[in-house]
Amino acid sequence: MFSRLFFLIVFVMLSFSVTATAQQQRFDSAEATDPNKLKWMQGFPPPADKIITHPESDFFSFPKLRWTVCHIRELLPTTLVSRGLSAPAPLPEKLDSEIDNITFKRLDNHRELTWKQSLTENYTDGILILHKGVIVYEEYAGCLNEERKHAAMSMTKSLTGLLAEILVAEGTLNAQATVASIVPELAESAFADATVRQVMDMTTGLDYSENYEDPNADIWIYSAASNPLPKPDTYTGPVGYYEYLQTVKKAGEHGKAFGYKTINSDVLGWIIARVSGSSVAQLLSAKIWKNIGAEQDAYMTIDSKGTPFAGGGLSAGLRDMARVGQLMLNEGTLNNERLFPQSVVEQIRKGGDKTAFSQANYRYLEGASYRSMWWVLHNKHQAFAARGVHGQTIYVDPTADMVIVRFASHPLAKNTHTDPTSLPAYQAVAEYLLSCCGKHQANVDAH
Amino acid sequence: MFSRLFFLIVFVMLSFSVTATAQQQRFDSAEATDPNKLKWMQGFPPPADKIITHPESDFFSFPKLRWTVCHIRELLPTTLVSRGLSAPAPLPEKLDSEIDNITFKRLDNHRELTWKQSLTENYTDGILILHKGVIVYEEYAGCLNEERKHAAMSMTKSLTGLLAEILVAEGTLNAQATVASIVPELAESAFADATVRQVMDMTTGLDYSENYEDPNADIWIYSAASNPLPKPDTYTGPVGYYEYLQTVKKAGEHGKAFGYKTINSDVLGWIIARVSGSSVAQLLSAKIWKNIGAEQDAYMTIDSKGTPFAGGGLSAGLRDMARVGQLMLNEGTLNNERLFPQSVVEQIRKGGDKTAFSQANYRYLEGASYRSMWWVLHNKHQAFAARGVHGQTIYVDPTADMVIVRFASHPLAKNTHTDPTSLPAYQAVAEYLLSCCGKHQANVDAH
Repeated sequence: MFSRLFFLIVFVMLSFSVTATAQQQRFDSAEATDPNKLKWMQGFPPPADKIITHPESDFFSFPKLRWTVCHIRELLPTTLVSRGLSAPAPLPEKLDSEIDNITFKRLDNHRELTWKQSLTENYTDGILILHKGVIVYEEYAGCLNEERKHAAMSMTKSLTGLLAEILVAEGTLNAQATVASIVPELAESAFADATVRQVMDMTTGLDYSENYEDPNADIWIYSAASNPLPKPDTYTGPVGYYEYLQTVKKAGEHGKAFGYKTINSDVLGWIIARVSGSSVAQLLSAKIWKNIGAEQDAYMTIDSKGTPFAGGGLSAGLRDMARVGQLMLNEGTLNNERLFPQSVVEQIRKGGDKTAFSQANYRYLEGASYRSMWWVLHNKHQAFAARGVHGQTIYVDPTADMVIVRFASHPLAKNTHTDPTSLPAYQAVAEYLLSCCGKHQANVDAH
Repeated sequence: MFSRLFFLIVFVMLSFSVTATAQQQRFDSAEATDPNKLKWMQGFPPPADKIITHPESDFFSFPKLRWTVCHIRELLPTTLVSRGLSAPAPLPEKLDSEIDNITFKRLDNHRELTWKQSLTENYTDGILILHKGVIVYEEYAGCLNEERKHAAMSMTKSLTGLLAEILVAEGTLNAQATVASIVPELAESAFADATVRQVMDMTTGLDYSENYEDPNADIWIYSAASNPLPKPDTYTGPVGYYEYLQTVKKAGEHGKAFGYKTINSDVLGWIIARVSGSSVAQLLSAKIWKNIGAEQDAYMTIDSKGTPFAGGGLSAGLRDMARVGQLMLNEGTLNNERLFPQSVVEQIRKGGDKTAFSQANYRYLEGASYRSMWWVLHNKHQAFAARGVHGQTIYVDPTADMVIVRFASHPLAKNTHTDPTSLPAYQAVAEYLLSCCGKHQANVDAH
């Protein structure tokens, strides 16, 4: 039972996956796998074959995951990311139904799609477009609605990276310091002589495998360690994120190549907690959630020592993620208040080492880089993004004054499967908004 | 490991406990056991002897419970009780520091205490007094502050009972119907021929023991069934609240005696879900939390099938519990809106069968009764209350136009240990407010 539990929990816990075989699979459509139509967890009690529960229940397999992404707190212990007690700051809205008809060509097979078609093709659960700070498009599907939260998956990393950049800008964190000088517990680990910047940009050299087909891969040990549920009496491995991170060995040199490894985010979470005196969840509340006029609290999964999963544990409302995107677009201001210095977003937008990045061979991200746990596209609009498996994104296009936020539950984890129907769609909407005028701002008080 | 886990989780899950021996114990003071001073879960990571985690960690033993009562969601899966997305309705405030000096005599040893002294004697974590709808007193201690939530324990039952009364008033639920006519799955159980009213008033005749000293007591089977964490492969018992409830056998006749048994609340939760189509958590949101101008979402613990624990699973903010109290005092209106018919509170306030209640021999509740899962004191002020182990209460005094809400973490579960320092204190404050004038309403817009 326990190894199976580990296997399944890891799908929530980490950010890669899926075998070559799976990639060839055909999946039932978004409509056919709508979790409401499939009646997951409906009824008192739900029928036995409609119950999704703790990881043992295979809770992150498709199509179950289409329900699970909105219900993480019902499956695992979580910690609050408080919005505080004040009134939300409503986002101005002027919907533009023309957006549905915008067309673009898929990146893979070049088939033409409308924006509206793309939303079902890539299993979108919620999508919101801000233009000049005004909601011009907002749709929900699957398990999501405006009052619910959705797993942000690896977009969590970008918020962790943002917090680190804020601490750097405030002088609380030295990006050039070595990890061991801040977290001495990591002195014997691979991270010891890495700089904070290398961790933030994931250019650490780590002997760490996320190969799901290898039963001895490090990912399984990490997953077992971070599992917040009670461990079997026979378990002798590391307990919690921090204990595991201390065991990671070095491979190669730091600063040479980009390697997308979630453990960097959790080391960064540890660094943040140590220098700020607040966990990532607490700091995310204090620095962001309490100051953006959020409509909903957010939350994070935790390990059995209460450590939030800085690499992937966040669940939040779609509109609140849009507020974060607008805050990034505005380079630190929102609702006429400056929340952090402009240098924070400047640091992120300038991007990371493109050569280091290119070695990772992301099919649809040629010329991009990774900086402070944000994806910097270096495209003609200078877009940058938070991204998470199964299609999550905060996509910020400064040229078009546009933010797109998407929550999704694509059957396949890797964004290679979502990018063909999302990246060109975002660009097409951006061009539409750029060309169509300032009409969205006509009658509203845009921030 | 597993039986110990059951043993410990049950302290959260149910509402009695504590042996005669334990009652004689002396406990460290509230100040000495302040969870912040004891540094539970502080540090990144916390030291090994300061970690409180899933039930295995003895999480509800004293003094750990003083931390745990504010952190249930970090230990167990939970489900949201949404406040919705609108702005909170602030409670008007005009604090009266004189209240600290009000004196009263303890019910047990007749020692005189001030109000302020009582708060530490009974391990108060948060207390708020509303007079004529205005906050005249508000204090936090221990793990609680105005932004946090606290376990409501068996006050959850009173909210479940309130929802049932609302459904009765709306014509959705027939209080005279038998349980089996609504929930056929209970046809073979003790509850089958009980009326909904008997369940609401806990006058069912049940062969059910909550004797913690008996390892074969039903409470352990119930606890194992409702535990939301993965069960061992060897487990063959009922899974979840509903499966367990179907196994309960009858003892005696229904309608004869009051017997405070949490399983009645969970049957009522099932009835509510079946007739309304919403779980208790969903209905609590729709009927109450979204309509009271709540500042915070609340949440409920769940079993492994997603069933909220209608008998004790709620955690909520202090001020939001005060809003519920004011709603009860106002007999269904709040912020100039009627949320449910006046008959709902009338049904509750008229009380249950006093003779049936008297057989339960509550030491400090002579002459009281239990109705719709509320405690009706039938005292000179016609007070009625929600109550939960370790000192939780919503105390509504219609005569003094007063609501007192208390969250606490008394070392001992039974309210027999809190009543001597709380019930006479509430009465003394009520008399002070009655006599002192209408000054609290002078400069504020009380609802």
